[in-house]
Amino acid sequence: MSDLLVDELQAERDRAPAYQRWAVKLEYDGTGLVGWQRQTSGLSVQALLEEAATRMAGGRRVTSITAGRTDSGVHATGQVAHLDFPTDMPLLPYRVRDGLSYHLKPHAVAVIEAAQVGLDWSARFSATWRSYRYRILNRPSRPALGASHVWHLRSPLDIDLMQEGANYLIGSHDFTSFRAVACQARSPLRTLDILRVERHGEEVWIIAKARSFLHHQVRNMVGTLSLVGQGRWKPERIAHALEAKSRCAAGPTAPPEGLYLTGVGYEPDPFG
Amino acid sequence: MSDLLVDELQAERDRAPAYQRWAVKLEYDGTGLVGWQRQTSGLSVQALLEEAATRMAGGRRVTSITAGRTDSGVHATGQVAHLDFPTDMPLLPYRVRDGLSYHLKPHAVAVIEAAQVGLDWSARFSATWRSYRYRILNRPSRPALGASHVWHLRSPLDIDLMQEGANYLIGSHDFTSFRAVACQARSPLRTLDILRVERHGEEVWIIAKARSFLHHQVRNMVGTLSLVGQGRWKPERIAHALEAKSRCAAGPTAPPEGLYLTGVGYEPDPFG
Repeated sequence: MSDLLVDELQAERDRAPAYQRWAVKLEYDGTGLVGWQRQTSGLSVQALLEEAATRMAGGRRVTSITAGRTDSGVHATGQVAHLDFPTDMPLLPYRVRDGLSYHLKPHAVAVIEAAQVGLDWSARFSATWRSYRYRILNRPSRPALGASHVWHLRSPLDIDLMQEGANYLIGSHDFTSFRAVACQARSPLRTLDILRVERHGEEVWIIAKARSFLHHQVRNMVGTLSLVGQGRWKPERIAHALEAKSRCAAGPTAPPEGLYLTGVGYEPDPFG
Repeated sequence: MSDLLVDELQAERDRAPAYQRWAVKLEYDGTGLVGWQRQTSGLSVQALLEEAATRMAGGRRVTSITAGRTDSGVHATGQVAHLDFPTDMPLLPYRVRDGLSYHLKPHAVAVIEAAQVGLDWSARFSATWRSYRYRILNRPSRPALGASHVWHLRSPLDIDLMQEGANYLIGSHDFTSFRAVACQARSPLRTLDILRVERHGEEVWIIAKARSFLHHQVRNMVGTLSLVGQGRWKPERIAHALEAKSRCAAGPTAPPEGLYLTGVGYEPDPFG
């Protein structure tokens, strides 16, 4: 091979992207996991997913970026992440989905969709909204089915009062009172598009949708609304809590086991 | 005390019932349990319930009778049983419910309702119907949330064809082809009131209701209908399977993890 050809091949290699990017939609049971982010101890969704992808890539390290770093014990039905695989792997959507799900066994994490995306696409930065569902089992008896999948509240909740309180939170606000003290976001300003309280038989669901959320924002809103639902707070106290711009002014943080990341939106939707 | 008075008290005691009967409605997660009935090894719902009741009775043995002896791995949202407590215990519905649920901890069995009933009332023999739900997760990816709570079938099910097949089973028939070979019921004749196939998002539910069912009848009907839904059987083959009066003529037994005993009916309803 001439030196010229070798140089040209090298130049081609330098121009070509070093990886192909894939978006994946994930379902997981957060019970017993330390949450999305890799920790020094305990199983994280990130570590399980990257390990599965790395195995598919024959041991070459594959890294991931996620749309939402869910906390320990929080579940997902529609989490999205992207993975960068080596370019020389022939990949098809169903093979990425099934291959990752296979290597994720026996953990309660599964890939439910996969789609190739451009290298400028990011699961985190391209997202235009995130949606969550919070499930409260509202009955006297403790849950037997799905005990780690709902928050159990014995006393009856008045969902009309809860919705009245929730309405104060919809729109653009400084959510300092509803963010974790350890929250690292630069701005406490967020725009909440949807905050809906629904009764489904013995359960009360709180549905939230926004471009993005602060750390613990959904759980802090739910914990505060539970006080309204139990009649311990009047709905308008939510407005005062918001105005106070102090975490101490709002209610407690609802436990993680009732929370589900249900979807992440992109325009266009990579999963079609 | 005079001998006469002693005799009278003794006679009173002989006339008085030796126990008070309570109906309880139960929810349980069948995962890891050997089913309703007490077995030589493994945890049964019956043993857990009777042990909880016996503890409430200060160690005096309390026994139970159930409406439906669910198999290992089968769940319940509305199982009913009755328990005979000693007469000298002051019991109230909420205390029976909460006391039993407390003593059932940490097992995934909870009492959701309790009501005192007459001594001639039987959870088994007074029941006028039983209802079941069978959940199939019908999507390519394996379940991550609730893996032991659905039957996972990858290939798309045609629920219209399934309903067409199900319609052959509704009504009074000899269900020999759909009963377990080990089924101990004297007659294979049963009247199926409802057999409905519904799609709920990624899930297909099969709802069944009858005065009573044969052993494995629901799971054998579901296993057979799954062949129809996958296009492997034409719906009318269900009619031929029924006519054959042979277990070999019908389809496979669907796995227990998709099955839920959802309710038992009584007239009047002891739980009001």
